[in-house]
Amino acid sequence: MTVNAYRHMALVLAGWFISSASIGQPVTRESLAHAEMLRAQAMAGSNAMAIVTSLTTEVGPRLAGSEAEARARVWALNTLTEKGFANVRNELFEMDAWERHEEGAEILAPYPQPLAVTALGGSVPTDENGLSAEVALFETLEDLKRVPEGSLTGRIAYVGHAMQRTQDGSSYGYFNEARTGGPSIAAGKGAVGYLIRSVGTDSHRFPHTGSLRYREEMPRVPALALSNPDADQLERIAAEGKTLSVRIKVDSSEVLAAQSGNVIGEVVGREAPDEIVVIGAHLDSWDLGTGAVDDGAGVGITMAALELIKDAGLAPRRTIRLVLWGAEEVGLLGANAYRDRYEASLGQHIMGSESDFGGGRVWKVTADSQTEAGDALFAEIARLLAPIGIAPGSDDLPGGGPDLYPLIAAGVPTLRLHQDGRDYFDLHHTADDTVDKLDAASLDQNVAAFAVFAWLVADSDISFRPAVE
Amino acid sequence: MTVNAYRHMALVLAGWFISSASIGQPVTRESLAHAEMLRAQAMAGSNAMAIVTSLTTEVGPRLAGSEAEARARVWALNTLTEKGFANVRNELFEMDAWERHEEGAEILAPYPQPLAVTALGGSVPTDENGLSAEVALFETLEDLKRVPEGSLTGRIAYVGHAMQRTQDGSSYGYFNEARTGGPSIAAGKGAVGYLIRSVGTDSHRFPHTGSLRYREEMPRVPALALSNPDADQLERIAAEGKTLSVRIKVDSSEVLAAQSGNVIGEVVGREAPDEIVVIGAHLDSWDLGTGAVDDGAGVGITMAALELIKDAGLAPRRTIRLVLWGAEEVGLLGANAYRDRYEASLGQHIMGSESDFGGGRVWKVTADSQTEAGDALFAEIARLLAPIGIAPGSDDLPGGGPDLYPLIAAGVPTLRLHQDGRDYFDLHHTADDTVDKLDAASLDQNVAAFAVFAWLVADSDISFRPAVE
Repeated sequence: MTVNAYRHMALVLAGWFISSASIGQPVTRESLAHAEMLRAQAMAGSNAMAIVTSLTTEVGPRLAGSEAEARARVWALNTLTEKGFANVRNELFEMDAWERHEEGAEILAPYPQPLAVTALGGSVPTDENGLSAEVALFETLEDLKRVPEGSLTGRIAYVGHAMQRTQDGSSYGYFNEARTGGPSIAAGKGAVGYLIRSVGTDSHRFPHTGSLRYREEMPRVPALALSNPDADQLERIAAEGKTLSVRIKVDSSEVLAAQSGNVIGEVVGREAPDEIVVIGAHLDSWDLGTGAVDDGAGVGITMAALELIKDAGLAPRRTIRLVLWGAEEVGLLGANAYRDRYEASLGQHIMGSESDFGGGRVWKVTADSQTEAGDALFAEIARLLAPIGIAPGSDDLPGGGPDLYPLIAAGVPTLRLHQDGRDYFDLHHTADDTVDKLDAASLDQNVAAFAVFAWLVADSDISFRPAVE
Repeated sequence: MTVNAYRHMALVLAGWFISSASIGQPVTRESLAHAEMLRAQAMAGSNAMAIVTSLTTEVGPRLAGSEAEARARVWALNTLTEKGFANVRNELFEMDAWERHEEGAEILAPYPQPLAVTALGGSVPTDENGLSAEVALFETLEDLKRVPEGSLTGRIAYVGHAMQRTQDGSSYGYFNEARTGGPSIAAGKGAVGYLIRSVGTDSHRFPHTGSLRYREEMPRVPALALSNPDADQLERIAAEGKTLSVRIKVDSSEVLAAQSGNVIGEVVGREAPDEIVVIGAHLDSWDLGTGAVDDGAGVGITMAALELIKDAGLAPRRTIRLVLWGAEEVGLLGANAYRDRYEASLGQHIMGSESDFGGGRVWKVTADSQTEAGDALFAEIARLLAPIGIAPGSDDLPGGGPDLYPLIAAGVPTLRLHQDGRDYFDLHHTADDTVDKLDAASLDQNVAAFAVFAWLVADSDISFRPAVE
């Protein structure tokens, strides 16, 4: 029996431990006291900034399936081992990767000049001399969808679709369809190439990359994003009514059967080690920046939160598992691999939460509890987060980060710490995503929230989903 | 006799015109009333933003001596002609130009990753495979200067020399020596390549280009600037004490006997057309951005100011000459050509002022008046500028813009409208120098200041330098 277990037993005997099933007190006073201590320690300064600085300095960009992503896994294994986590492991999986070699674009007429562009992730290459064609401009993706088949034959389609700045980032789904689905929609109309205004809210000369998804039945056309100032320039010229032609160039290749992986470390539960609270972030990044905001911040926040719990000598009832997912950016490949590998134990995954929305402060917490006991525990979590500026709010959909989607689909409840993302899409998927953009105090507030929630859920015996009949 | 001249005569007969030589009233009441009207019109909205938008959209980047700079001259000739200025002309001169083709850098060890760099203007190329070497880091240029000859043999020198943000931009001279003089200083110590932290105050992943000046007797080494986040990265890695090696690559070429030129338009003086007030800006830009801040803003401000005077139907006593200088960025070549061409008439250049510090508001005005009458006229100018937020201040050196240096050396007095430059070096010489960074109201305030000063000086008979004995 561990020291902690003795202390726990003593509390039970003293009558302090009151299970949710009896009179609605979801956690012990001791557990709450530990949560308050973790919150205070995190707010006073955590290791989050040091972790993300180390990752982004020593590895830098780490594209899914690349040799750099493999170095990131080595970094993660070494770091988790040095920090003394349990069951540190590297769970590899195979994937088809994509590599960027070269890209460019220029206006040929009426006003010759270079454009700041980046190929969308997965874009097929043009031939060596690039592709020159007249541009057909569309203000929104909807406008592109409405033109007849064959109406863009031989032309490059451009979609404006300017993204709005929001606190919760909720418009990303709407705007990024121009990136993910646009290339095949344009090809369906006869277009030979595809350009978008970057899915981003900044006004700097950084194009934003990100995945596209070609539809099987459509010709694959090269696809690039323009920086916002370059998109403005294109639209300004087009507004003069003159014929606009551009040359685009992409050199890229596919790497079949490349390797990616999820790196895992744990604090093992003292009573129910097979019951799992999953926290984490994705380890891969796009190739243009060093992936500090997306998602080095999440790696730093969640690893620092678990480190805080471990270093306090606390052993929760259940296991807290830190998962650093691989190949998130190219289609949640690590998340799917995790789901497949742990299929048999997903029923024992109590709750999950990913940090994947940059380094901004948490302002809202939501959870998809389906039990009264879960609601009561959530109320305790919310009470402890309120003093650090986090209020419970409504959320239409279960969430908790993209890498949890496969788990959500398998029924795992999630808790979501909503970060302020007003600036997130200024940097997202750009070369400018570097560590100087992060604020240590803001990361610490995130660490506090993760430590409080993960500790309280793991230290309880509460389930958020109804028992199977 | 023109209508204006009649009005002028009427004022003289009415005794309103009081020459500075008599009782110290430097300008007529009518002239002052016109200046106030010009100020009000400019503040209500000028054409400055439309002009810089047109230049940066229809021409874009316009490197000295390039075909794009030639297109900028065509744009300027057409624009000045359309606006109805007098004596519109293109004064060509020959120069040796430089062209950027390709550039790049990467850390080879200890942490392989790409770096965001740009070649300094004038950099010699590396060979096709680039140049790989160990890096010797120096915090300041002074530190580099102090190491012994031969101590950097075979290495690439890096100079940190982080620029400070100031209102008046006065530290630029200090910091840009690392760019202009650094390459030959490093070569003198045996270095085979040269890297600097960009001379810039932003924290974005934009390297800042700008001219270097090789010393005749030194080997010419390839020289590049790192963006500030990349310089941070390099310094962070070096601080770990590990050997740092990088690969740099530059492909560039010289174009001998290329063409540049100054484009000129005037409002001709009604009484003393040979006496000249020079205002203007430089037409060339660096090749990375579209040169909106440097110096499309100046082109817009000064052209809009002269347009305002012309469109008001005002003919000043003296000629106001708008000069759009060529090839400023690579060594004031247009300014020197202007000085040579107009050498015989420099004694009749009453005053000059260039706008070449971006689009920020003017906050200070200084002039190098050497006469009491000049002081009195300056006091009138200052009085009219005070309500729009401009106060007279001290200035150690004569100024008024870099393209005036050759004229200053020849004795031409200058007036300087000091702009707030706190943000200027965020954008200066980067790809991010685009028109969305400018604010129309701020440009209008600059136009008001230029119109007031140019009008009052040109409409007076006052000299700012003592009569030659």
